[in-house]
Amino acid sequence: MILYDREHEDREAIGTALAEARGLSLIKPYDAPDVIAGQGTCGFEIAVQAAEVGIDQADVLVCCGGGGLTSGVALALEHEAPKMRVRPVEPVDFDDVTRSLQSGRRESNDRSGGSICDAIVTRSPGEMTFPLMRDLCGPGIVVPEDDCLRAISVAFSRFKLVLEPGGAIALAAALYHGDQLSGDHVICIASGGNIDAQLFTRALQTYPCP
Amino acid sequence: MILYDREHEDREAIGTALAEARGLSLIKPYDAPDVIAGQGTCGFEIAVQAAEVGIDQADVLVCCGGGGLTSGVALALEHEAPKMRVRPVEPVDFDDVTRSLQSGRRESNDRSGGSICDAIVTRSPGEMTFPLMRDLCGPGIVVPEDDCLRAISVAFSRFKLVLEPGGAIALAAALYHGDQLSGDHVICIASGGNIDAQLFTRALQTYPCP
Repeated sequence: MILYDREHEDREAIGTALAEARGLSLIKPYDAPDVIAGQGTCGFEIAVQAAEVGIDQADVLVCCGGGGLTSGVALALEHEAPKMRVRPVEPVDFDDVTRSLQSGRRESNDRSGGSICDAIVTRSPGEMTFPLMRDLCGPGIVVPEDDCLRAISVAFSRFKLVLEPGGAIALAAALYHGDQLSGDHVICIASGGNIDAQLFTRALQTYPCP
Repeated sequence: MILYDREHEDREAIGTALAEARGLSLIKPYDAPDVIAGQGTCGFEIAVQAAEVGIDQADVLVCCGGGGLTSGVALALEHEAPKMRVRPVEPVDFDDVTRSLQSGRRESNDRSGGSICDAIVTRSPGEMTFPLMRDLCGPGIVVPEDDCLRAISVAFSRFKLVLEPGGAIALAAALYHGDQLSGDHVICIASGGNIDAQLFTRALQTYPCP
């Protein structure tokens, strides 16, 4: 395992250099066709499960970093449930995808770290994922970090699920940013639970859910 | 909603009196055929999912209070996976089912409350559930409460699940009482997450899971 300083080092560059020096294959965490296709199976599951309860139209909120999960889900839904609309959800100050979708080109964030939503913080959308999101997604939704902590507490209390901030951000958008949604149905992906006990406890204590 | 004092009042008597006074149907939480059958669907799921990975023989650990879930699962497995053996799991001091299986008749606990495993604390096995468990289950496993807190921390860290003490007791048996198990496969049911933030936090802080 090779650790790095995400504030001052570039993991892409480290990965590329390692792959070249050791003759390894680099599998990028989102900008790779097989990764996008694999994450897209989540969209397939959404289409199947929604159809079982008679839903073919919905805003589908996806926790969004580099856009692998988002573009994969959007691709799957384009085929399986084309009336659904994918909405990328990002934290405040790390809204590169939302701004890229607005401007039509890949925008970057000023910072590469310093968010509790660290799992979904990337500098900019992927070269491969951005065109897919541009063609297939609705507008992004930008959520303050504290709303993620509130959603973690709701997921604990109501769904009995452990979520990390970045994995709870789509739920946070559904719960606290409904003014940006339309239609009767909202589907959100809860995409990760890598949270330490200290931060989890802080979420439960700061935002107790009755 | 009618609240009662579980240490000094008898909920069975309260329920029966209410049903008579108001002409209502009393649906008991475990000693009722439809409830047992409904909970047995969990055993059916176990058989199907285990078969998918080629497993037809296992100790199946079930969080056990009055025995509705336990006897339902045992009934389902008798038909769907008859080589599996159901093992009821109970907290120390509330091991009425384990002792009843040993003696062959319905034994009682001295206390009816005072456990953090409150969801699975009952005075004695049900009239309907006991004969089923007697005919179909292996020996009970009795687990200290602290092991349930440890299992809650493991479930948080490894499975990203929120469990209450009584719902984590089968996992606790698997993790810390393996000396009472035999065979290569152990299946446990995680049966509830009704835990408040305070007790959950205590579990994570007391038994941190690296």
